[in-house]
Amino acid sequence: MNRIKIAKLLKSETLVKDVLVKGWVRTRRDSKDFSFIEVNDGSCLRNIQVIANNSLSNYQDLIRLSIGSAVSVVGDFIVSKGSGQQWEITAKHIEIISLAHASYPLQKKRHTDEFLRTISHLRPRTNKYGAMFRIRSELSYAIHKFFNEKDFKYIHSPIITGSDCEGAGELFRVTTLPLEKPPLKEKKIDFSQDFFGSEANLTVSGQLSAEMLALALGDVYTFGPTFRAENSHTGRHVAEFWMVEPEMAFCDLEGNMDLAEEIIKYIISYAIDQCGEDLELFAKFVDKGLMSTLDGVASSDFVRLPYTDAVELLKNSGKKFEYDVGFGKDLQVEHERYLTEHHFKKPVIIYNYPKTIKPFYMRLNSDNKTVAAMDVLVPKVGELIGGSQREERYDILESRMDEMKMPKEAYWWYLDSRRYGTVEHSGFGLGFDRFIMFVTGVKNIRDVIPFPRTPNKIEF
Amino acid sequence: MNRIKIAKLLKSETLVKDVLVKGWVRTRRDSKDFSFIEVNDGSCLRNIQVIANNSLSNYQDLIRLSIGSAVSVVGDFIVSKGSGQQWEITAKHIEIISLAHASYPLQKKRHTDEFLRTISHLRPRTNKYGAMFRIRSELSYAIHKFFNEKDFKYIHSPIITGSDCEGAGELFRVTTLPLEKPPLKEKKIDFSQDFFGSEANLTVSGQLSAEMLALALGDVYTFGPTFRAENSHTGRHVAEFWMVEPEMAFCDLEGNMDLAEEIIKYIISYAIDQCGEDLELFAKFVDKGLMSTLDGVASSDFVRLPYTDAVELLKNSGKKFEYDVGFGKDLQVEHERYLTEHHFKKPVIIYNYPKTIKPFYMRLNSDNKTVAAMDVLVPKVGELIGGSQREERYDILESRMDEMKMPKEAYWWYLDSRRYGTVEHSGFGLGFDRFIMFVTGVKNIRDVIPFPRTPNKIEF
Repeated sequence: MNRIKIAKLLKSETLVKDVLVKGWVRTRRDSKDFSFIEVNDGSCLRNIQVIANNSLSNYQDLIRLSIGSAVSVVGDFIVSKGSGQQWEITAKHIEIISLAHASYPLQKKRHTDEFLRTISHLRPRTNKYGAMFRIRSELSYAIHKFFNEKDFKYIHSPIITGSDCEGAGELFRVTTLPLEKPPLKEKKIDFSQDFFGSEANLTVSGQLSAEMLALALGDVYTFGPTFRAENSHTGRHVAEFWMVEPEMAFCDLEGNMDLAEEIIKYIISYAIDQCGEDLELFAKFVDKGLMSTLDGVASSDFVRLPYTDAVELLKNSGKKFEYDVGFGKDLQVEHERYLTEHHFKKPVIIYNYPKTIKPFYMRLNSDNKTVAAMDVLVPKVGELIGGSQREERYDILESRMDEMKMPKEAYWWYLDSRRYGTVEHSGFGLGFDRFIMFVTGVKNIRDVIPFPRTPNKIEF
Repeated sequence: MNRIKIAKLLKSETLVKDVLVKGWVRTRRDSKDFSFIEVNDGSCLRNIQVIANNSLSNYQDLIRLSIGSAVSVVGDFIVSKGSGQQWEITAKHIEIISLAHASYPLQKKRHTDEFLRTISHLRPRTNKYGAMFRIRSELSYAIHKFFNEKDFKYIHSPIITGSDCEGAGELFRVTTLPLEKPPLKEKKIDFSQDFFGSEANLTVSGQLSAEMLALALGDVYTFGPTFRAENSHTGRHVAEFWMVEPEMAFCDLEGNMDLAEEIIKYIISYAIDQCGEDLELFAKFVDKGLMSTLDGVASSDFVRLPYTDAVELLKNSGKKFEYDVGFGKDLQVEHERYLTEHHFKKPVIIYNYPKTIKPFYMRLNSDNKTVAAMDVLVPKVGELIGGSQREERYDILESRMDEMKMPKEAYWWYLDSRRYGTVEHSGFGLGFDRFIMFVTGVKNIRDVIPFPRTPNKIEF
């Protein structure tokens, strides 16, 4: 007899004789002649109710089943006589696979998110985190499906790199040198003896690699882990997070904005279509306004607003902000939220930022002051996507690198791509974990990642 | 006018007026009245031949187009009058987007793989590496599709970890401590001052995390980068590689073998169906026997052979091996190749290995000598998959950890999963890069990864 997953069984909507279900006990209550056992196998949010009649040979053991125990059930899948569920299984045989120790922390009561983070290895067994990680899985798949349908090629950009894409510092070093006694040369660390023969870090972005592939294959994307050694303790920052980075040859900033808008709508629609039951949990317990936020974003045309206009708009808003607004200053979360939540009440793409606040690789506009950058802002979360058209002109790229005192020698290969058949190209980065926060309404990024990495936290 | 990709255009198989194509010049030859320009845009292996008539206003510039230059072509897509291609474009207008500098290394001649590795940023522009990275992309998608169809959940296991899954050492350290002057405490490095407050490494496997999720969600898999700081200079080893690791609750070793066989066949069939043109290149230039090897694996029932029988078979083979065979010794590549290529002439799954040569988490068999491990061996490449049923019995797991002198405290969470609702479960690891080697016949793992990471190599 083959085991059937509960998700599939509940979809059958018809009586099935002799099914085999395996899972974990979520609750149990006993009446005079029966024990009602709620079993969950992780395939979906819903449990299946199993009716254990006291005629079962091991009934005395069954009424001692603790929460979290594992069982194997054979019985008939029938229309439930009780209320609260449409279907149930009347058991012919229940095997106790294992009893959970009484110290099992997930007893039937509400737990705080803070507590559940301390048992990250067990929290996927709760309704909320089971739903979370199923949604995360579905939306990862949606990302790949979206790009596959558009003939983008998926590339694996290197995780260990010698370059610092953003020039932002805050890198994790990767080394095999003995820290107690590293080799020295002229009183400095001798990295020629390190594994890679020079300094190595964890990547902050796959963009530069993706550009090389886009200039060969056309449209490409990465979807992989990136790292930032930022000592931040906010609910929006982790040291390790997954980024989606498309890069397109023969594409300008407008095409880039089109793709950004399209992917956001696609993923949200996919979530609504494919994760209905799990999403409902978040709409019910986490953010009552969730579905209307999601529907709003999926159905609205995103506003496209030059940075300079955004600054004017904020200045003239009459609203007092904590941080000043002015050309050359980066927009803060309060400004972003004002624009998307109060003023436009929908997603806003800000573009053409001052060159002074953006990295070297963004394309210089003809005003010589701004670059063809764009940020996509959405209600509640703020920035979901940041991207740009890339500087494809060799001379300008080189002088931007000089201005910013970058070590050009290390980027010889990047400059090569502008020497040989350079074309306009664009791309962006979508923070996948923040996207999941947006889709679920969850406020802390630690709660959308199975085992989050933050300062002083490396357990599990 | 919207640009059309060459892959799509060549599929149209019908005359199309006024198409817009953008790409890079692969070759150019001039006759009296025409210039024939082969343009490739990376969307497929094939170029489109563009006929530039000398009546074009910029014809004098066009006949100076260097290899690697970028062009934008408007013209009609028509049946070719020449031989060598079915379709071509008669250009009405050709814009030169950029000229490639004459030093462009990819002139029309064969280059060695060794040379091309030194220009990893440009090699995707060659036929071979373009095909390679398109195949890599398609098969990545096939992995996700396979698991999605089987209702497995995709999980992102942590890349930075405090634990060493295999207990094998050879880890990359991740740190933000200043190497020149790391903080000390009692003459030892004070890791409490490091970013994570303790020692941190790059993961060698997502398995332990995947187990936690499987014991909540049922069937899960990872597909992400893993790392090994092995000072190997073979064609089979890199420091950074991508692994696929499924993990299934309520699954024993047999179910594990079933899944391993199924995924290998699925991916190979997908490659044959979806990557025909690109695969042909490898069958023509890299390995003449490629298609028959692939067809053979996709259509054969894998042999399933206990390790003990494999040892007997090898001992009685009459063949002289460099390395001795005997119970308790690991099989070497020469033994694996003998079994798959000479004896059985098809894939072989060896199972039930001696516990002494396998990690702590593998399930102890009732003979007390072997564990429920399995390795899948295929012709030419050897081991593609390694996996096991996991030890789900708390007491036995604990005593195995004691035997191997493991720091149990660090694994409290892993042990927890055997304390609360433990069930039989199994999983394996499939080295994705080696799989690509197998599918393309390419012998060096450096040539299946865009920017490979090996000892003393971190460029790009």
